[in-house]
Amino acid sequence: MENLGSSEVTRFLIAISIMLFLGRTFGELFRQIKQASVIGEIIAGILLGPTLLGSFFPEFQDWLFPTSGVLAIAIDSITTLSVIFLLLVVGFEIDLSIVLQQGKAALIIGLTGMMVPFIIGYGVAFGFPRIFGGDENSNYIFFFFIGISLAISALPIIARTLMDLNLFKSKLGMTIMAAVIFNDFAGWLVFSVFLSLIGTKSHSLEIHNTILVTLLFVMFLLTIVRKGIHKFLPWIQSRLSWPGSTISLLMILTLLSAAFTEVIGIHAIFGAFIFGIAAGDSVHLKERTREILNQFVTNIFAPLFFVSIGLQFNFIQSFDPVIVAAVLIFGSLTKIIGCGLGSRIAGFGKSESLTIGFAMNARGLLEIVLALVAFNAGIITSELIVAIVILVLFSSVTSSPAVSYFAGSVKIFSIKDLLDVRNVIFTDIRDKKNLIREMCNAAAQKTKLRPIELFTLVWGREEQLPTGIQNYLAIPHAKVDIQRPVLLIYILKETIDFQAFDDKGSRIICLLLSPANNPEIQLNMLAQLAEIFKDLSFSQKVLEMKTPSELISFIREHI
Amino acid sequence: MENLGSSEVTRFLIAISIMLFLGRTFGELFRQIKQASVIGEIIAGILLGPTLLGSFFPEFQDWLFPTSGVLAIAIDSITTLSVIFLLLVVGFEIDLSIVLQQGKAALIIGLTGMMVPFIIGYGVAFGFPRIFGGDENSNYIFFFFIGISLAISALPIIARTLMDLNLFKSKLGMTIMAAVIFNDFAGWLVFSVFLSLIGTKSHSLEIHNTILVTLLFVMFLLTIVRKGIHKFLPWIQSRLSWPGSTISLLMILTLLSAAFTEVIGIHAIFGAFIFGIAAGDSVHLKERTREILNQFVTNIFAPLFFVSIGLQFNFIQSFDPVIVAAVLIFGSLTKIIGCGLGSRIAGFGKSESLTIGFAMNARGLLEIVLALVAFNAGIITSELIVAIVILVLFSSVTSSPAVSYFAGSVKIFSIKDLLDVRNVIFTDIRDKKNLIREMCNAAAQKTKLRPIELFTLVWGREEQLPTGIQNYLAIPHAKVDIQRPVLLIYILKETIDFQAFDDKGSRIICLLLSPANNPEIQLNMLAQLAEIFKDLSFSQKVLEMKTPSELISFIREHI
Repeated sequence: MENLGSSEVTRFLIAISIMLFLGRTFGELFRQIKQASVIGEIIAGILLGPTLLGSFFPEFQDWLFPTSGVLAIAIDSITTLSVIFLLLVVGFEIDLSIVLQQGKAALIIGLTGMMVPFIIGYGVAFGFPRIFGGDENSNYIFFFFIGISLAISALPIIARTLMDLNLFKSKLGMTIMAAVIFNDFAGWLVFSVFLSLIGTKSHSLEIHNTILVTLLFVMFLLTIVRKGIHKFLPWIQSRLSWPGSTISLLMILTLLSAAFTEVIGIHAIFGAFIFGIAAGDSVHLKERTREILNQFVTNIFAPLFFVSIGLQFNFIQSFDPVIVAAVLIFGSLTKIIGCGLGSRIAGFGKSESLTIGFAMNARGLLEIVLALVAFNAGIITSELIVAIVILVLFSSVTSSPAVSYFAGSVKIFSIKDLLDVRNVIFTDIRDKKNLIREMCNAAAQKTKLRPIELFTLVWGREEQLPTGIQNYLAIPHAKVDIQRPVLLIYILKETIDFQAFDDKGSRIICLLLSPANNPEIQLNMLAQLAEIFKDLSFSQKVLEMKTPSELISFIREHI
Repeated sequence: MENLGSSEVTRFLIAISIMLFLGRTFGELFRQIKQASVIGEIIAGILLGPTLLGSFFPEFQDWLFPTSGVLAIAIDSITTLSVIFLLLVVGFEIDLSIVLQQGKAALIIGLTGMMVPFIIGYGVAFGFPRIFGGDENSNYIFFFFIGISLAISALPIIARTLMDLNLFKSKLGMTIMAAVIFNDFAGWLVFSVFLSLIGTKSHSLEIHNTILVTLLFVMFLLTIVRKGIHKFLPWIQSRLSWPGSTISLLMILTLLSAAFTEVIGIHAIFGAFIFGIAAGDSVHLKERTREILNQFVTNIFAPLFFVSIGLQFNFIQSFDPVIVAAVLIFGSLTKIIGCGLGSRIAGFGKSESLTIGFAMNARGLLEIVLALVAFNAGIITSELIVAIVILVLFSSVTSSPAVSYFAGSVKIFSIKDLLDVRNVIFTDIRDKKNLIREMCNAAAQKTKLRPIELFTLVWGREEQLPTGIQNYLAIPHAKVDIQRPVLLIYILKETIDFQAFDDKGSRIICLLLSPANNPEIQLNMLAQLAEIFKDLSFSQKVLEMKTPSELISFIREHI
C-alpha cells in the first residue's frame, strides 16, 4: 500500500480542515440568515479556490490545493466518497409513495416543469449556442445538456424551504414535494441516458444497452432490494450490533450500487441516489440510524464536496456576463413558467401556481454534479459551469422569499425559533408585580412597544386569571402589535405564587408576547410550552442550569 | 483538482466496500463469540491481503489493492483519515480524573506495568537482537522500540473486556482503567520521543526541541484547549445548529491537532488522541454528539483501518516462529509479571493481582500503529510486525477468559444479554395455568431442566404471590439450577389476570429463570424488567409488534 509521505499527510490534513472550517462557518452564517447552508459552503469554496485565494496567494493556494499529484488525488478520493454518501442521504428524503398519492397534479406539474425548460433550453441552445458558451460545432449532446440542466430542480433545498415556511405538511407543500420528487427522479433517468450519450468512457456496453441496464437496475433496486432491505433490517437489528450493523450495511450497499452504475457507464452517484430511495423507504430504518448518517454526512461530507466545487474554477476569470444572463433568465423563466403552467392546468389558483413555480425554481446539488460531469467530458466550458453555479446560488437565495411572499400563509412558530440566550435572565426578584414590570420593561426594549402599555396588558391578564401552570412554570402573556412572537425566560431564586395547578409556586417564568393579528399563534405557543415542561424532572433540570447558554442549550436539546 | 478516472473510481468503491463488508462481517462474528470485533477486522484484512487472496489470485488482489499508483493513494488517504478519527474517539474514553482519583495504586501498577516490559524488552533486544528480527547492527532505536512496544496496553480492548464482565464500575475495574490510562498516556509520550529519535523525517526541529514542543503541546491541549472547549461548547450549542456544529468543530480541531503533531515530527494520530482526551472530558459534549461520532467511526472508519493492516503484510511469508515466540512470551510474561508485581506492591491480593495482570496484557491499536510507523521508517522487519499483530490478536483473545477466570466475580447480567428472538412467542392461550405450563415446557428444553419441576416452582410462586406488575406486564419467575438467567417472552392475544397493580390484566408475560446460587441476579433482573416497562405507551408499542424480530429489535432500541 503506497503511503502518503509526512509532508503530504500534513498538507492533506490542513487542506481538509480548512475546507471544513470555512465551509461550515459560511454554511452556519447563511443558516443564520435563513438561507440554505449549501450556498455558504459553495461560496467558501470560491474564496479558497483560484478565484480569491489563488489570485492573491497563488503559491500558497497551489501548496494547499494542488491540481495534480498525490495531494490532489487524496482530496479527490475524499470528495468522491463525500458526494456518494451525500446522494445516499438525499435519496433517503425521497418518498415515492407521496408521488403516487398526489398523483395527477404532481405528474402534470412535474412534467411541464421538466418539459418547458428542456424544450426551450434545447431550442435556444440549438438556435444560439454561443449564449451558452457553445459554438457552431456544438452538437445535440450540448443542446441536450442545456435542456436537462435547466430542467432539474433541487429536492433538498425545496424541502428545507417548505419546512422553514411551515408549508411542508400542507396540501400545497405535499404537491410541490411530489412534483419535485417526480422531477428529480425523471431528471436523473434522463441524466443517465445523457451520460451514456457522452460515451467518452471506454465501456463495453452499447448506448441502448446502458439505458436498458440502467432501467433494469433502477427497477431491481426499487423492488427487490427495497423489499429485501425492509425484510432484512429487523433481522439484522435484532441479531447484530445496533445501530452499527445497519450503518455498515447501508454504506457497503451504497458503495456497491455506486460502483455498479459507474461500471455500466453512468455516474457512481446515480447508484447511491437510487439506493438511498430504496433503503430510505423502509420503516425499519430507524430514526437513530438515519440521524447518525444524516448528521455525519451533512456536517462533514457535504461541506467537503460543496467547497471542492469552488476550488476547481475561477469565478472571475470564467465569468461571462452573456452566458450568466442567459442561464439565469432562461433557467428561471422556463422553470417558473413551466411549473406555473402545470399548476394552472392541474387546477391551482394564480398565487398558488406562482408559489409552486418559485418553489420549484430552486436548483442545487444535482445541477452542479451534472455540470461537473459534462465539464470533465469536455462538453461544456468552465464559463457555463460558473453560470450554472451562479444560477444555483441565485435561485436558491430567491426561492424562499418568493415562496413566502406568494404563499402569504400564516406561519406557525416553534418554541425553538424563539429561544435566545439574550432573553434569559437569572433574578432574585421576590415580588410578582415587580417581576412582571421588570420583564415588560425588558420586552419593551426588544419590541419597541411602550413598557407601560405592555405592563397594563400582561398584569391585567395575570390579575384576571393567574398563569401558573405546573412544575414551577408560569407563562404570563399578552397579544400585542408585533409580527413575530417574543419569549423571555426569567429564572427566580425563590418561588412566587402564580397559582399553579400543583401548588408548587413558580420559578420558571416565561413571558410570551404574540401577534395580536393572529390569535392562533398564542394558543399554539402556550400549548408548546406546557408540553415542553410536562415533566417535573425536566423543570428541575432546567433549574439546575447555571448560565443562559447552558439553559438554552439544555432546552433545545430536549425539544 | 486531479480527478480519479472512471475505472479508478470503480475499483476504489469496490475495494472500500469489500474491506468494509469483510471487516464488519468478521467483526460481528467475533463479537458474537464475545471477542473484540477488532480481532475479526484484522483477520479480514489478512484474508484480503497478500497472505490469502494474494497467494491464490495475485492479479485480482493487485487490481483491487495495488501497492502503488492512484488507487493506492486513494485508499491510503481514507485509512489515514480513519485512524485519525479513530484515535479521537479512543481519546474520548480516557478520563484523566479517574487516574487522579485512583492515585497511588494506579500509578504504581501503571509504572511497573510499563517499566518491567520496557527494561526486559530493551535488555533482551540488546543481548539477543536476532530473536526480534534485528542483527548485530541494530542500535538503541531498535532496542527502544522493542521495549516500548512490549510496554503499551490497549485501553479500548481492556475497557470493553471489563464492561463485558461487568467489572468496569467495581473498584478493581476502576484501578485497572486508571492504570491503563496512565500506561497509555505515558506510553504515548515516550512513543513521541521515540518518533523524534527516528529522525528520518526532514523536520526543522532538533530532537530535544521536539520533545519540548510535544510536552508544551500536550499541556496546552489538556489545559487551555480543554477549558476553552468546555466553555465554548454551550455557546456554540445554543447559537448554532446542533449537534452539527459540534461535530464539525471537533473534526476540524482534530485534523488541526493531527497536522500539528505531524509537523513537529511525531505522528498525526498523537495529536488526534490528545485532542480526544481534552474534548471528551467536557460534560458539555453531549451523549448524542459522542454517539454519532462513535458509531460512524466504529462502524466505518475503524474497520477500514484495521483491515488495511492485513493488506500490507504477508502473514505466512513473514511468519518467523522464533520471533513470534519471542514476542508472545516476552510480551505476555513481562506485562503480566510487571502489572501483577505492581498490584502486589499496591496491596492487592494474589488473585486480584493476576486479574489485573491479565487484563492489562491486552494489546491493540497503539501497538500496531507504533509498529507500522517503525516499519515505514525502516527500523523493524515485516517479520516483527507480523509477530506483533499476532501478539495483539493472542493477548486480546486470552485476556477476557483469563480475567473472567481470576476475577471469578458475580456477574450482573443485563436484560439486553437475555433477549433472543427464539424466546419470543405469540400465542392465543387464555388460561393462566396452561400458559405457565407451556412456558415451562419451552424453558425446560432450553435449560435441560425437568419440565414438571420447573412448573411446580413457577406455579407455586405464582399461587403464593401473583406476578402481575403493571402496563400489561407479568413476570412469573423461579430460581433454578442454571449458570445464566433465561428470559422467555410470550405475547398474548387477550389479557390474563396476573393481579397487576393497575388492574389491567397482563399480555406481556416474561418468564424469568435465574441461578439459584446467586439470589441477587433475580432481584436485579426483575427490577430491570419493571424499569423497562414503566411507561404504558412503551408496553402498547411492544404489543403492536408483529414478529419476534420486530419486538426484540424494538426493545433493544429502547433500553
